[in-house]
Amino acid sequence: VAAAVFPDTGRAWVVGVTGPPGAGKSTLVDGLVACARAGGARIAVVAVDPSSPLTGGALLGDRVRMQGHATDPGVFVRSMATRGYPGGLARATRGAVRVLDAAGWPWIVVETVGAGQVDVDVAGAADTLVVVVAPGWGDALQADKAGVLEVADVHAVNKADRPGADETARDLAAARPGVEVVKTVATTGEGVAALWDAVARHRARLTAAGEVEARRAAGLAHEVRALVEQDALARARARTGGPAFDAVLEEVAARRLDPLAAAMRVSAG
Amino acid sequence: VAAAVFPDTGRAWVVGVTGPPGAGKSTLVDGLVACARAGGARIAVVAVDPSSPLTGGALLGDRVRMQGHATDPGVFVRSMATRGYPGGLARATRGAVRVLDAAGWPWIVVETVGAGQVDVDVAGAADTLVVVVAPGWGDALQADKAGVLEVADVHAVNKADRPGADETARDLAAARPGVEVVKTVATTGEGVAALWDAVARHRARLTAAGEVEARRAAGLAHEVRALVEQDALARARARTGGPAFDAVLEEVAARRLDPLAAAMRVSAG
Repeated sequence: VAAAVFPDTGRAWVVGVTGPPGAGKSTLVDGLVACARAGGARIAVVAVDPSSPLTGGALLGDRVRMQGHATDPGVFVRSMATRGYPGGLARATRGAVRVLDAAGWPWIVVETVGAGQVDVDVAGAADTLVVVVAPGWGDALQADKAGVLEVADVHAVNKADRPGADETARDLAAARPGVEVVKTVATTGEGVAALWDAVARHRARLTAAGEVEARRAAGLAHEVRALVEQDALARARARTGGPAFDAVLEEVAARRLDPLAAAMRVSAG
Repeated sequence: VAAAVFPDTGRAWVVGVTGPPGAGKSTLVDGLVACARAGGARIAVVAVDPSSPLTGGALLGDRVRMQGHATDPGVFVRSMATRGYPGGLARATRGAVRVLDAAGWPWIVVETVGAGQVDVDVAGAADTLVVVVAPGWGDALQADKAGVLEVADVHAVNKADRPGADETARDLAAARPGVEVVKTVATTGEGVAALWDAVARHRARLTAAGEVEARRAAGLAHEVRALVEQDALARARARTGGPAFDAVLEEVAARRLDPLAAAMRVSAG
């Protein structure tokens, strides 16, 4: 499906929202949806949860979440749970975003729970990447093993009514000059409109600078490279099993064939 | 060279010594060498240091270390520094061990600094794996991202004159029943003979159980698999560059070719 719709993609603006668990991303995304609707824009949300093994659970999540928008035809929500193979969740997420893009949704929010590789893939596919942290910059740095803070286009310091919010906002601003930092309290809605405005400003800046196509091309190039490498690894793993491979291993165990020569034989076979 | 000598390998007993930085592995290995020599056995040491970029530095290290054995023809020491390609250090280390094995060294100690992948590769190539920790089991667990503690054949709690040594030894014994835990103070030599005896007992047990060949075969199978995967990735990376790849990326950026179809074209090309 994603392949068939690909020629019709590239019209939506994709907003990635990521950050460590507990930062309050879901509530913040609900607030951003309300901002978009207040401005008359239709908006779709793809919520990625690598920790949920059940698609059923994710579907239930759709109903529990976004209740304020449940009867609004201008809002679409789809939750994505884990897939059974490496890279599968990221691939399924990109496919869902493309289907929504081709279907004409002008704004698409992709929300991830801050779990490493998926975040990196989402970051590569987002036109504007919002990284959400709660007060406590040291913790955020610890949680940022995947390095998404370094590629954020907008920073949100959520739960900004808690101690340390100003310090965290200041540290982020100092670490990444030129990247807007917005303090939010998603549960009360405070600062959420300002965050939505910051996203719109980032979009306007990128568009005015003529950088949108180059940024998307770089993301697509990264995606193609990753797919080629995944395919190569899958083929390699298919070759390192079965009777022919076992026969090679027996030669190695008997020290008649050295491991590198064995690997070359398997790679060529 | 490693390929040529491979048929003559499998006679040495390879002892891996690994653990987090600061555990005192080098001093402990010096002590184990003294134990081997006291028993009349010739012994070679391959010291792996992924943090040293200079072969020259490693050579100097050979001279600085093991000064007590510098004039002993029954001791051989070779330091390995980083190589410029992924997996290169592990491959070079295995090659060095095989050359020493084929040359008739009956005991070979491979010492690594506890830096992830190299440890895992060393663990797979060792007949007896000694994992060294200093008192402070929580820290050791933190440092054990690569999971080598789980595959240790013998545990050494070095710096056992420091507070917490008994607790660490007790925790290790509880976590891995059946795996010997030896407390050592490498700087004074305390417990080092007991550690060497524990290594010898592990060898005797593995040999009596007839498990040596199966264990080595499993290690070699892991090595061949890793080489096949490395080769596949290297080929994939070679294909994702150059004018032909750039032409494919242009088609993708123009949305005339979807990323998966592009990847299939690149993989086949």
